Amino acid sequence: MFSDGVFAIAITLLIIEIKVPRIDSIHSVDDLVNALVHLWPSYFAFFYSFGGILVQWIVHHNTFNHMDKTSRPFLYTNGFLLLTIIFFPFPTALLAEYINTAYVMPAVVFYGIASVVNSLAWFLFIRSVNKPKRLLNDTFSSEEYNKLKASNHFAFIVYTSTAVLAIWLPYVALSLNVALWILWVYLSLIEKE
Amino acid sequence: MFSDGVFAIAITLLIIEIKVPRIDSIHSVDDLVNALVHLWPSYFAFFYSFGGILVQWIVHHNTFNHMDKTSRPFLYTNGFLLLTIIFFPFPTALLAEYINTAYVMPAVVFYGIASVVNSLAWFLFIRSVNKPKRLLNDTFSSEEYNKLKASNHFAFIVYTSTAVLAIWLPYVALSLNVALWILWVYLSLIEKE
Amino acid sequence: MFSDGVFAIAITLLIIEIKVPRIDSIHSVDDLVNALVHLWPSYFAFFYSFGGILVQWIVHHNTFNHMDKTSRPFLYTNGFLLLTIIFFPFPTALLAEYINTAYVMPAVVFYGIASVVNSLAWFLFIRSVNKPKRLLNDTFSSEEYNKLKASNHFAFIVYTSTAVLAIWLPYVALSLNVALWILWVYLSLIEKE
Amino acid sequence: MFSDGVFAIAITLLIIEIKVPRIDSIHSVDDLVNALVHLWPSYFAFFYSFGGILVQWIVHHNTFNHMDKTSRPFLYTNGFLLLTIIFFPFPTALLAEYINTAYVMPAVVFYGIASVVNSLAWFLFIRSVNKPKRLLNDTFSSEEYNKLKASNHFAFIVYTSTAVLAIWLPYVALSLNVALWILWVYLSLIEKE
Repeated sequence: MFSDGVFAIAITLLIIEIKVPRIDSIHSVDDLVNALVHLWPSYFAFFYSFGGILVQWIVHHNTFNHMDKTSRPFLYTNGFLLLTIIFFPFPTALLAEYINTAYVMPAVVFYGIASVVNSLAWFLFIRSVNKPKRLLNDTFSSEEYNKLKASNHFAFIVYTSTAVLAIWLPYVALSLNVALWILWVYLSLIEKE
Repeated sequence: MFSDGVFAIAITLLIIEIKVPRIDSIHSVDDLVNALVHLWPSYFAFFYSFGGILVQWIVHHNTFNHMDKTSRPFLYTNGFLLLTIIFFPFPTALLAEYINTAYVMPAVVFYGIASVVNSLAWFLFIRSVNKPKRLLNDTFSSEEYNKLKASNHFAFIVYTSTAVLAIWLPYVALSLNVALWILWVYLSLIEKE
Repeated sequence: MFSDGVFAIAITLLIIEIKVPRIDSIHSVDDLVNALVHLWPSYFAFFYSFGGILVQWIVHHNTFNHMDKTSRPFLYTNGFLLLTIIFFPFPTALLAEYINTAYVMPAVVFYGIASVVNSLAWFLFIRSVNKPKRLLNDTFSSEEYNKLKASNHFAFIVYTSTAVLAIWLPYVALSLNVALWILWVYLSLIEKE
Repeated sequence: MFSDGVFAIAITLLIIEIKVPRIDSIHSVDDLVNALVHLWPSYFAFFYSFGGILVQWIVHHNTFNHMDKTSRPFLYTNGFLLLTIIFFPFPTALLAEYINTAYVMPAVVFYGIASVVNSLAWFLFIRSVNKPKRLLNDTFSSEEYNKLKASNHFAFIVYTSTAVLAIWLPYVALSLNVALWILWVYLSLIEKE
């Protein structure tokens, strides 16, 4: 499946944004230890985006498993969704570069905008599996479909408000996103299946 | 499927050509905002090539779904088609680098030549699914096959003429390509399936 | 399968860390020969990580072949395992850059820590295929399962102790890892299937 | 299939070695045209390696289609074969960088060595589908198997002798390889299937 491949490549490309400390700037063992420690923004951005793409892949894959038809509008909304996924290595690298500087604001806002556009793409994707014709088969209950829609609305509201908040309080906005993400994983783990 | 993987990777590699603004050149929050805004040629080139590869993937995948045989000439024409797809990240990066400069002409012409070669590869591909032996099964109507050929001829004419036009009017040529692309998506969306 | 794609991409990305000698620093044929010979740390790191990821892929793929169910915790442990796999191109490049310098210690320790976290991810993965519900079908014997667990415990102990040893004796620690890896391949080749 | 993914990624990574001319060195439209023309070593190396990997993928895929068993030694020889495939982007970039310089010899010899090791990997791969146990099913005739072996022996002899010849006559050795490759494609196209 083409979509799975795109998710797999986007998630793996995240690693090539973590750059090895250049040997010219290393003059002792301690220098290299410090350089590796000071790469924490890169590690953080890597984990953060990895988590985001992985969760989306699980939801995307699960939705595809319940479809046996397709439509022209669906192909386009799926394409647009993949475009927003593929885009993430760029804001991830931006965040890694600037999170630890005085210029963090535009990086967090930019990442936030990418997340908002991504949730809009999910909105169109979710809509297109039901209209103009229903593409999901009966193994996907309308309860599940409504839950998917509710998650999407929630994500849209959270990403939009934290992207706006980030203009004044970038670190608070980012922390909120991370906290919600941890909460979401926790809730999905204790949930009865 | 190998071909799907190649499409997925070529489309995803487009993102690594968008480079994060280097911190050395950023001295204020406004600098970073400006730098991100001035990356618009990279965003544009990314979207443009993403759209082109995605549409080709949909057509390619659809054709493969109606084949249950293969032939030696087909393997070579398919390989040549994949080569022209894989090549796109290079003219994309070239366009992103030069679209906003006085040296835009060779970049647009080069992208145009890549598109012409790509449509020639499609020409050979489409021909090889029918000759020397018919590889398509009966679920692919001859009407669909003729439509595919007509699209290919149209694309060849458009890309060739805009590539020539770009020698004198690079921006007009590029705009024509983008306009035709939008029109094409619009027409395919309103079309009865 | 998404996981297979991630393994394939992580293993292939290893090659882009080997950099072609820059032409500015080459003034004779002998210079280029020497430069290619002096890339041995890159070749070594490439082979070493390639072997590690390949063996893990074989084990991972084999485990998946015996599963026909899935669970939420399993999706997360599998995701975490993939994260540790995707991470390897970074310590690989680090090792290649510093193995031949006076600052080798942090590079070997860092690679060791990545290996320890990787074996912890395997621990959670192996656990999650059995709990909270058994996901493996009966074609995977409990003997095989116990062997998998034993290998994991062994790997964890080896990686932890060599990572600690590397603080004082980085080359000895690395040699031990390589020797154990060769021994492991040898044993698995002579083993009756 | 993991192997297909590795072939797809290795072949696609070839493009990222073609670097866009840097804008600092471009002062006129003619400069950019010249820079694009002078990238011919990169285009050549890209096409050359693309062809080599594509042909190997076709043969590899065809062999896998006739197997329904596997063995431990086969997994290792297949892994080693994939390693030699993944390695090609590096000698390709090396060839592109030095083909047009006075230091071409080590680049051609290095590419030749990579090809020799690659044909040795094929030798082991071909052997392991038959020994210690036969993995091919009856749809793969022994005639086909012998043809595969003969091609491999031929490739080994050609790559070894041209790699040695390249020490004195790098351009002649390279031209011989290209000529043989074109001849091979031509013969396979006119061959009765």
